[in-house]
Amino acid sequence: MQPWKTLTKRVVCHPNRFLTVEIHELELPDGRRIPDWPWLITPDYANVLARTTDGRFLCLRQFKYAVNGVSLAPVGGFLEPGEDPLHAAQRELLEETGYAANEWHALGRCVVDANRGVGTAHFFLALNAKPQCARHADDLEQQELLLLSRHEIEQALDRGEFKVLAWAAVVALGLRYLEKKAEPLK
Amino acid sequence: MQPWKTLTKRVVCHPNRFLTVEIHELELPDGRRIPDWPWLITPDYANVLARTTDGRFLCLRQFKYAVNGVSLAPVGGFLEPGEDPLHAAQRELLEETGYAANEWHALGRCVVDANRGVGTAHFFLALNAKPQCARHADDLEQQELLLLSRHEIEQALDRGEFKVLAWAAVVALGLRYLEKKAEPLK
Repeated sequence: MQPWKTLTKRVVCHPNRFLTVEIHELELPDGRRIPDWPWLITPDYANVLARTTDGRFLCLRQFKYAVNGVSLAPVGGFLEPGEDPLHAAQRELLEETGYAANEWHALGRCVVDANRGVGTAHFFLALNAKPQCARHADDLEQQELLLLSRHEIEQALDRGEFKVLAWAAVVALGLRYLEKKAEPLK
Repeated sequence: MQPWKTLTKRVVCHPNRFLTVEIHELELPDGRRIPDWPWLITPDYANVLARTTDGRFLCLRQFKYAVNGVSLAPVGGFLEPGEDPLHAAQRELLEETGYAANEWHALGRCVVDANRGVGTAHFFLALNAKPQCARHADDLEQQELLLLSRHEIEQALDRGEFKVLAWAAVVALGLRYLEKKAEPLK
């Protein structure tokens, strides 16, 4: 099973720092060529399923432009250029909730789109989260902080209330991870 | 919590049927305007966690352009224009594996990107899958069909062998669903 070869890349659209569109010319293992494969460069991001010392899950109720109505969301956001994914996860937890956690588990990372890239999602589970400072709200979005019980977050997941792919994924992977024992990252 | 208002939309890039890039001019609830919000239109897709009558999970080992190396994948693919997501899921199961299933459960749907759209992912669990016809391989990709035990697919998920976001999500959501009882779609 051989990878495809990238022959050329050209930028066809770069409206701002959140998006670059390239067209790649590809060669398949059998020699066929594809002249116009779209490739999307967007920032990588981190999402965190965070549980407090008293066993409640930190979630945000928020509006997002691509979501139909309001959605439940885990903590998360874009990585700064060059930022380590775990650092971004810890920074976002503090900024979005005012909590800090002392036990972190990696839940894996995934490319967002199998064909076009669209960045990489990094997933974490944060345990023993405690209030540490005031929340630093995003300047564009309205967000309401919720503390959900295990039963409530399971129900919300099963009812489709996490309406964004990475959000449903990190909650499903995090709840799954909590069924098992593992060593923390730090 | 109020949605943002779309004031104008313009297409800035449309290299082929797999991608249209728009720039939206938005108005926030407080009256502020964003002149250059990128919006990405790509085809919706369906993914299926499929289990055979003897309790094995149908997976594909395949190369994808955006994936580093080979990945395990569940069944899945783009919806045809106007196609019902369940129909697409059933069609993809037959085309990619040659199997048909008589019990289908909806696992939900998610927008792929909270900010830019990038299509909607529709997830299904298919049970009692049986061989029905020859596989109809995709003309671009090399794919190897695997039948994994419950233990093997759990291990593969935990090891990060499903390297694409929607693929890890449907496997996690499907395995979670199997812990519970539910009525089939048909």
